[in-house]
Formats: sequence, structure tokens, C-alpha cells
Amino acid sequence: MHNMTWIDDTLRMVRKKRPLVHNITNFVVMNTTANALLALGASPIMSHSVEDLEDLVPVADAVVVNIGTLDEYFTYSMLKAVQLAKVYKKPVVLDPVGAGATRLRTRAALMLLNSGGISVVRGNFGEMSALVGEYGRTKGVEAAAYESVKAAGLVLEVASRYSTIAGVTGPVDYVSDGRRVFSVELKKSSQKLEQVIGRVTGLGCIVSAIIGAFLAVEEPLKACIAGIATFKAVSLYAAEESPYPGSFHVKLYDWLYKIDGESIRSVVKVSSVELSQREA
Amino acid sequence: MHNMTWIDDTLRMVRKKRPLVHNITNFVVMNTTANALLALGASPIMSHSVEDLEDLVPVADAVVVNIGTLDEYFTYSMLKAVQLAKVYKKPVVLDPVGAGATRLRTRAALMLLNSGGISVVRGNFGEMSALVGEYGRTKGVEAAAYESVKAAGLVLEVASRYSTIAGVTGPVDYVSDGRRVFSVELKKSSQKLEQVIGRVTGLGCIVSAIIGAFLAVEEPLKACIAGIATFKAVSLYAAEESPYPGSFHVKLYDWLYKIDGESIRSVVKVSSVELSQREA
Amino acid sequence: MHNMTWIDDTLRMVRKKRPLVHNITNFVVMNTTANALLALGASPIMSHSVEDLEDLVPVADAVVVNIGTLDEYFTYSMLKAVQLAKVYKKPVVLDPVGAGATRLRTRAALMLLNSGGISVVRGNFGEMSALVGEYGRTKGVEAAAYESVKAAGLVLEVASRYSTIAGVTGPVDYVSDGRRVFSVELKKSSQKLEQVIGRVTGLGCIVSAIIGAFLAVEEPLKACIAGIATFKAVSLYAAEESPYPGSFHVKLYDWLYKIDGESIRSVVKVSSVELSQREA
Repeated sequence: MHNMTWIDDTLRMVRKKRPLVHNITNFVVMNTTANALLALGASPIMSHSVEDLEDLVPVADAVVVNIGTLDEYFTYSMLKAVQLAKVYKKPVVLDPVGAGATRLRTRAALMLLNSGGISVVRGNFGEMSALVGEYGRTKGVEAAAYESVKAAGLVLEVASRYSTIAGVTGPVDYVSDGRRVFSVELKKSSQKLEQVIGRVTGLGCIVSAIIGAFLAVEEPLKACIAGIATFKAVSLYAAEESPYPGSFHVKLYDWLYKIDGESIRSVVKVSSVELSQREA
Repeated sequence: MHNMTWIDDTLRMVRKKRPLVHNITNFVVMNTTANALLALGASPIMSHSVEDLEDLVPVADAVVVNIGTLDEYFTYSMLKAVQLAKVYKKPVVLDPVGAGATRLRTRAALMLLNSGGISVVRGNFGEMSALVGEYGRTKGVEAAAYESVKAAGLVLEVASRYSTIAGVTGPVDYVSDGRRVFSVELKKSSQKLEQVIGRVTGLGCIVSAIIGAFLAVEEPLKACIAGIATFKAVSLYAAEESPYPGSFHVKLYDWLYKIDGESIRSVVKVSSVELSQREA
Repeated sequence: MHNMTWIDDTLRMVRKKRPLVHNITNFVVMNTTANALLALGASPIMSHSVEDLEDLVPVADAVVVNIGTLDEYFTYSMLKAVQLAKVYKKPVVLDPVGAGATRLRTRAALMLLNSGGISVVRGNFGEMSALVGEYGRTKGVEAAAYESVKAAGLVLEVASRYSTIAGVTGPVDYVSDGRRVFSVELKKSSQKLEQVIGRVTGLGCIVSAIIGAFLAVEEPLKACIAGIATFKAVSLYAAEESPYPGSFHVKLYDWLYKIDGESIRSVVKVSSVELSQREA
């Protein structure tokens, strides 16, 4: 896992297979995540229609459900999509945007998780905390103050409780399969990246969407790490070229196209985290 | 008011407080205005769900309602949000996109205004005219031919009739509290800005959204002037760097991040307008 | 038709008239196509509300219906808009996004086509195939493997069956009025364009939207050719400047603003296609 050489092949497979990734996502990032998936080399289809599900899920290579702007129709459509994905054995990634910020979103995230069809759940610290009953940490849809010391334990608890792969993103990202915890981080911090990373909407949603693309070619633990590591590298290169929100956003898509395994490995490292005790 | 030195602090306060701005807005600009608020330094949350309102309005620092793409659900959600904002004493900005172009939009804008919870209403000349019964001036959602001589009187009438702050944007912008009228304009006109300003969608919506951010830290009259002045400066700097629609749009977000009070004051001036008679 | 000198005037007329183009389109590209129309010089209005139709269709210069993200409300709104467009003699362009990929979309596209109010239908090879009963060729919303030899015959069949103008876009684009077939292609292929063209979402939707703008000033056959030729030239210039998805996307809007007839004619050619037999 740690030397990351496997990511070269994972990325190559995405570009060779061009997996069809079916997204039921929020209105704010539909364009953003479709463009991110295309730039990376996958084939997105965006559809929230319940009537489309029977035709799309069976042919999709992965499904992304993202609760960033909910109403009853979307919630129903996501639940139905996850059920169909179980029937057709399709991997699903859940982005619990705003869980903890409103009861509607927390409930929807929990319903989706409890359905048993979620392969990977990825959120920020506040959102992931809400999934284990720690409320009041989410301010809007932004990350709560990042408690890195607790994040590793949190992700272990989410993964273990819901029998899924869980990823939490922040200054250091952690991924767990319910037994082990891995950290994903930049080898060297970047002031330019820190300046701009919180200033563009939908970046977390991009991470979840590209995890969807990796799920189509890789098992969930590696897919989650690959998605997080790829985005971390891409955002670093983009910020180094242009640390202002508009230009940075544009460069992200350029780099999702340009990135390769070696460029990821040269700036991102994956490590095992030893937890002396359950800390969540 | 006129020397504008207060805007330095207003802008600094937005960046320090990072106010949570709750947006119920149209599908076309959800991404645009979320990114504009983030670039400026605020924390947007985009949610149209009625179920979310009880959880979001009480913790929001300001609410933005924008009628650019309406259906019954959105209209109901906006009305409910404005009612809750009154209860929780939260400032609200209304963007009456397309009022005057269709009866649905005119009615929705008037319902929202008549609810009594609107702190600031900002639109273009055609939209603001529709709010005082002057129809047929809106072509689509674009500004009607700007009748500058009438715009100052118009904004006074809107503000006075609905006991709110009213802002009209165009070549010269006017803001009124129902008694006084202020103009906000560039010290020097820019051909590059004039070339590109009408060629990107959602610019008016950005102005309204950032007025929302300023409402979280400033009283409504100043918040409206600050939002308009900030956007005027930002769009000038962006257009001078790149007077073509795609690149200009990208630069807008860069400049929303970079802008400070001094850069605004050096290119924008605010003046009192003496109205010899009611001209609307 | 072939020397394309007429396109100079067509483009000038769009910029002079600034036609109001009413779009009922999908959530993914609402911002994209509004910005494309503005950059070109038209006046977009985006509205899916049934209540808006009676006020918008009569004053619109053209209507664009795009089925990229459907639900019952949108389908009903599009059908009603096409009916009203017939009453008020407004030209309509249909983009059958994802026809063939799901039954819902195929049915919606056919219902709209059979209503008799469609002036131009433009899609990719898989979508257009689905309109004549050739299913299973659409992978998601992307083009099926382009069968150029069959594309010319296909477009003739669609145009003839539905008494409309049909355009199919791909490496070579074909347009037919049901009797004749024209090809629209680059005079010289571009590796940079080929690299980037499939990596941004909504490009086909942009073509359809700008055909809408041209429909407001030109008869349907020429409007379809003008829209396709303009986009082909614009995408070539943008890709030559920047062959990566994010930057290319930005440059597209810049070039939609900058493009003129001569720049189109210098890189795109239109030819008559002789079909020895029906090949679809």
C-alpha cells in the first residue's frame, strides 16, 4: 500500500476503460464534478431521474451519491440507486455533504449508509463526526476546525460501524477499512495551496466523484486512497501555478488531465497510523 | 459615507468572521455565487430545501433569496426563509431576477418584498421598475436600456415604498434608504469593462450574494454600497487584465480574493444625489 | 451554401439583434450554455417554469429544449414550450441528450420530435441513431464510436422522417434537410483539439444553444450549419491556445466573443455529400 506504485496502473486503467460513473449529485457541483471526471478520463452521466435508474445503474461502472442539495425526490432517487447498485453489484461512493449541519442531511446520510450498499463514504471532519452521533461540529458545509488527533480515530469508527471504507479529508486525510487506518498527506506543505484550498466550492465533491472513477477499476480501500491522493497532488500542482480561486479552479481540470502516477507519488505519501486506543 | 474609508474595515470583518450566508438561488448561478462568496472570504451554504430552513436560518449570518429560476417549491421555500429570518432577526437580500419579464417573477418578487423581511433589494433597471408597476422594460433577464436619469428616482421609490434599502445596478449604480440616494460609480470609465460586462451570466447575482456577506457585518445601507462598490472594483481590475468573457469570469474570482479597501477606494467613488423632484 | 460567405452576415445579425433565446435545459449546463450564448452575442433566458412559458415564448426569438437531466416537470414544460412555439411561430432546437441511453430520454426526444414543432435536432451519433430505432449505441451521454460512413445517411433519415433539419456532430459533422446532406469539417485536423474535445462537459449543448441563436436570424438549414461551423472554429482556436480541459473551456467563451465569419471560413469547410444509396 505505502509505496504507492500501484497507483500508476490504477490511473492508467481509468484512462483505458473510461468507466461510466453515474452521479446523483447536488445542483451546485453537477457541472464541476462532470468536468472533473471527464478531465481525469472517466465518463460521467448525471441523472437524478428515478425512471432513468433501471437503465443506468446496470450499465454504470460506479455510482456517486452526494446529498449537497436535497429534496424528497433526490433522496428517494439516491436510496433507489443504492438498492439497485446492490442488486447489480456496483460500487457506490457517498458524499454526506452538510451532514451535521441539518437534520435532513444527517438523516439522509445515515439512511444511505444503513442501506448497506455504500462502498466508500468520504466527508470532512464535521460531516464524518455527524455519522457517529457527534453533532454541532459542522458550520454550513465547511469543515469544522480540524482536529487531526481525532480524525484518525473517527474514520476508523465510521468504517467499522457501517462496514465500509471511510475517508476524512482535511489538512491530513485519513482512510480506514474498519481495522487499519492510513494517512494520506503531502510530503511538503504548500503555503499557496493552504491559501486557496478553502476558496473554491465543490472540491470535496470532486474527491468523492473521482473516488467513484477509481472504484470502477480497483477495490474500495485502494480506490479511496487513490482518489484522495490524486486530488491532493492535482490541487498542489494547480495551486503552485496559480494560488487564486478562479485560476486555481481552472488549473485543477488541466492537472486532472495531466496527472500521472509518478507525479502523485513524488508529492504525496501514504502511511499506516498506529492507534494506541480508540480515539473517536 | 462618501470617503469610503469605512469599507476597509467592512471587508476585513467579512474575512475575519467568515459569515455563513444561506443562499436560496437559481440553478444557473448556484456554483457562480458560491464561488464568489468563498473567494471574497465568506462561507456560503446553498440549500433550497424547506426542511433545512429551521436548521440553517437560525445559524446563518445572512440570507440571500434569488428568483432567477422559479417553481412553486422554490417560491415557498424563499417565503418561509424570509419569515424565519424575521423571527431570528437575520438580514435578507432579495435579487428579483427577471421581475417584469414574467408575471410569475414579478409576483414572487412582490410577495417577498411585501413580507417585510427584506433588508436590501438589488436589481437592474427593468427589474426595479417592475417593483413599482412599470412593466415591459425587462427583456429577458437583462437590463432594459439604462435610463440613468430615472434610475436615481426609481431606487428612492422602491426603498421608500417597501421600507428597505434598494440598489439598482447599471452603468452608474444607485442606492437609496428611502430618504437619501447615493451613486456608486467608477472614477474613470473603462472600455474593456464595457466590452465584457454584459457577456457573462450571473454578475448581478454575484453582487447580490456579496451584499449578503456584507449584511452579516454591516448595517444594510452600507452593506449594499459595499457590495456594489466591491464588485465594481473587482470587475474593473478583472476586465483590465482580460476583456474576454471566459478569462474575465475567471479573473473575477481571483480579484474577489485579492481586493482590499484601498483598491476599491482608488477606483470607485460614492456621491450623494440631489433629486430636485421625484423622478420615478 | 458552400463558400460560406453568408456566415459573415449571419453572425453580424446575431450580434446586432441580440436575440432572446429561451432555454429549457439540463442542470449540468445551464450556466455553460447561458455563458456561451452571452459570449456569442445573444441574450439567453433560462427558465423551466411552466408558468413562465406564456410570457416568455411569445417574446423569445428562439427556443432551446435539452433533455440532459429530465423529470416529469421538465418534460411537461418542454412539450408545452414546443406547442406554444408552434402557435407563435418561433423556431425550436432540440438537443436529445442521452437518447438511446435510457428509455425515458428516448421517449421524451421522440415525443418532442413528433410534436412537429422542432426546427432543428442536433445530437451525437448514438443519440441520433436512437431517434430512428437504433438503440444500444449510446454509452452514457457520450458519443458512440463514430461511424462516419453511416452518419451522413443517419442524418438524412432523421431529417426526412421528422420533417426537420438534423445535425449529427462528431469528427465530421453532417447536416440534412431531408433531401440533401452537407458535411461540415475542419480543413486541417488538429491534434490538440482531438486531445481535449471529449474532456469538457456540455460542448454538444453549447452547439445546440448557439444554433438557437442563429435560428433567430436565419432559416433552419443555414442556422444549423452556422452553429456547427462556428463551434468547430471556436473549439479549434481555443484548443490551439490551450489543449487542457480547464483552460480550453475558458478560452471557448473568449473565442465565442472574438470569432468572426472570416475566421470561421478560413478553418472550416462545408461540402455536399453524395449518397449513392440510403446508408442508415
